[in-house]
Amino acid sequence: MCQPPAVGLAITLSVLAESADASAALVIPSSLVGDETDIEAVRAFARECDVVTFDHGHVPAEVLSALEADGVILRPSRAALVFAQDKLAMRRRLTDIGVACPRWAQVRDAASLQVFGDEVGWPLIVKTPRGGYDGKGVRVAGSPQEVADWLADAARDAAQGDGWLVDGLLAEQKVDFVRELALLVVRSPSGQAGAWQVVETVQTDGICTQVLAPAPGLDPHLAAMATQAGLRIAGELGVTGVMAVEMFEVPDPQTGDPAYLVNGLSMRPHNSGHWSIDGAVTSQFEQHLRAVLDLPLGDTSPRAPWTVMGNVLGGDHPQLYPTYRHLLARDPGLKIHLYGKGVRPGRTIGHVNVSGTDLDDLRSRASHASDFLQGVITE
Amino acid sequence: MCQPPAVGLAITLSVLAESADASAALVIPSSLVGDETDIEAVRAFARECDVVTFDHGHVPAEVLSALEADGVILRPSRAALVFAQDKLAMRRRLTDIGVACPRWAQVRDAASLQVFGDEVGWPLIVKTPRGGYDGKGVRVAGSPQEVADWLADAARDAAQGDGWLVDGLLAEQKVDFVRELALLVVRSPSGQAGAWQVVETVQTDGICTQVLAPAPGLDPHLAAMATQAGLRIAGELGVTGVMAVEMFEVPDPQTGDPAYLVNGLSMRPHNSGHWSIDGAVTSQFEQHLRAVLDLPLGDTSPRAPWTVMGNVLGGDHPQLYPTYRHLLARDPGLKIHLYGKGVRPGRTIGHVNVSGTDLDDLRSRASHASDFLQGVITE
Repeated sequence: MCQPPAVGLAITLSVLAESADASAALVIPSSLVGDETDIEAVRAFARECDVVTFDHGHVPAEVLSALEADGVILRPSRAALVFAQDKLAMRRRLTDIGVACPRWAQVRDAASLQVFGDEVGWPLIVKTPRGGYDGKGVRVAGSPQEVADWLADAARDAAQGDGWLVDGLLAEQKVDFVRELALLVVRSPSGQAGAWQVVETVQTDGICTQVLAPAPGLDPHLAAMATQAGLRIAGELGVTGVMAVEMFEVPDPQTGDPAYLVNGLSMRPHNSGHWSIDGAVTSQFEQHLRAVLDLPLGDTSPRAPWTVMGNVLGGDHPQLYPTYRHLLARDPGLKIHLYGKGVRPGRTIGHVNVSGTDLDDLRSRASHASDFLQGVITE
Repeated sequence: MCQPPAVGLAITLSVLAESADASAALVIPSSLVGDETDIEAVRAFARECDVVTFDHGHVPAEVLSALEADGVILRPSRAALVFAQDKLAMRRRLTDIGVACPRWAQVRDAASLQVFGDEVGWPLIVKTPRGGYDGKGVRVAGSPQEVADWLADAARDAAQGDGWLVDGLLAEQKVDFVRELALLVVRSPSGQAGAWQVVETVQTDGICTQVLAPAPGLDPHLAAMATQAGLRIAGELGVTGVMAVEMFEVPDPQTGDPAYLVNGLSMRPHNSGHWSIDGAVTSQFEQHLRAVLDLPLGDTSPRAPWTVMGNVLGGDHPQLYPTYRHLLARDPGLKIHLYGKGVRPGRTIGHVNVSGTDLDDLRSRASHASDFLQGVITE
């Protein structure tokens, strides 16, 4: 999705793709095929680049170190990326700089988990600090027994002084939130920064199905505080490029006023910012390119009063084309973005954006499009 | 410029490019290098395509015939393209279907040119029916002597029964117009059609420097008539894809009311439609792809009250990057589109779009950007 703005800005992209028919390789001429865990492949690729950036958060730390040792310019840098890759490091750092988070604890055994849970209330959210993605590495635990396997791994890794759970687990208070919000910010190496409007991410069965831009009825003071927090995080952590800050909206425990708690960070263009492709003067993908190249940033203003993004998941019918054609005919104002991925049930294969003045109408059009493409409805 | 919307629509483009570093080849993975006059190269390329379309109007008729004989689907078809390639054929056909044009005549010798000029008034616009582009093949003639070389070629070609001027010349009344307008229409093989708002093309020294979308203060009746004419032309000529209709705004000779005369046709996405990339729900490039693939067409509504497009010409400084960087910083709302071409004085190397509510402000921002990138101004 960086290729469309790169074309206009005359920026030449190269991609290290997992296969020759990976989505990005299909649309970017100078693509190489290689694995991001293969240090030599990544080094050879990076030698030809002015700047290297990332479209996921799983590049191993030793690969990042090798690149930095070679003098490759990584944006974001390894020092910043660690806070997106390691949830314990993130929680510690955010707490250090005074950003509101759910209550949390680093736990290495059942006894300390029990103590923390008894203090903040069960169930807890328990996370592995690394390796989590799309709900993996996250459990809702009603007791230490429900993460007994992880605790055993953590004990073993602590004894060995090495391993994926050597730092233990991250336990968090399960927040009783009003809704989920997300803020997209951007920061360049020169320190120029910007933020888009705060959005609501609508979740269905734990999966983000829609994004409403802006978040309807959001308290202006909360919007300002959340934006300020996002910009502070970007500056304090030395982020370069786009960063998504996922938040819970909660009542302030003292005053009852609307407040936020930061749930997580992603240091790349993010699903919660896909609305900006059609809904903002500068999309997150154009902005990410500008930022990592240290070009001046673009205007983040919305183009329309409302933009609704609907995720499209793979469904039971593997042929997308008939529904796609039907949908183009049914709603000429819909912007369809497909990722060129094979259709598998539950896999995110694209999204739709629709902009206008009537939020209810936009939400129902986006829902229809998502459901129809997925095959949940047939008309 | 078709690649960005192709990415979102998951349409795989291939391009037959004049060189490996041609603009399109830089951004489209499955590019072949070849010459559009090389029948075998074009045939080999076309065999791999579902549909073939064109980004300029100069593909020779014999190449088009060979492709159609091979069963290749051309959109637009050769039968439609002839009206964009041959100005005499275009004038004859438009006159046959009752579309208002400047007065015109097919002339083969000085005597008939003299008669026509004496009737409609000198100077005349004299055009070679084929081979014209960006003002080439067009002269303002105050007398037959000023096109004596063309008339000699026409006499020779008429005697031989073959040659580029075998059909003679197209002579047209020089229209005293109020301003120049353009209308972009689209039509699919199924017959679905659409039109964008009528725009004004602002000319400076015979070159289009800005496009104002919509044309300011345009009489609504004229807008409706012009749109109806454009859609009729597309239908009558069997156009598939996007077509630009260039028009003069003139006072009606009887009533004095605002009226139009059709100046020319281009059967492809056109400079007068570049505003639509940022200014319309569906850009001309997305729409062209939808149309030539016979997909349902998208909404042509504007996204903002005004969009101004400014062409960027190559100037004296070959390094575009410093000005580009400065401009991004100066105007974060500007959408810059560069074509990845080498900078040569006078060559169109890109354009800028800017949208909003204050036309004067938008025009001055677009002018500044064009002039600054060209090097006409340095601040």
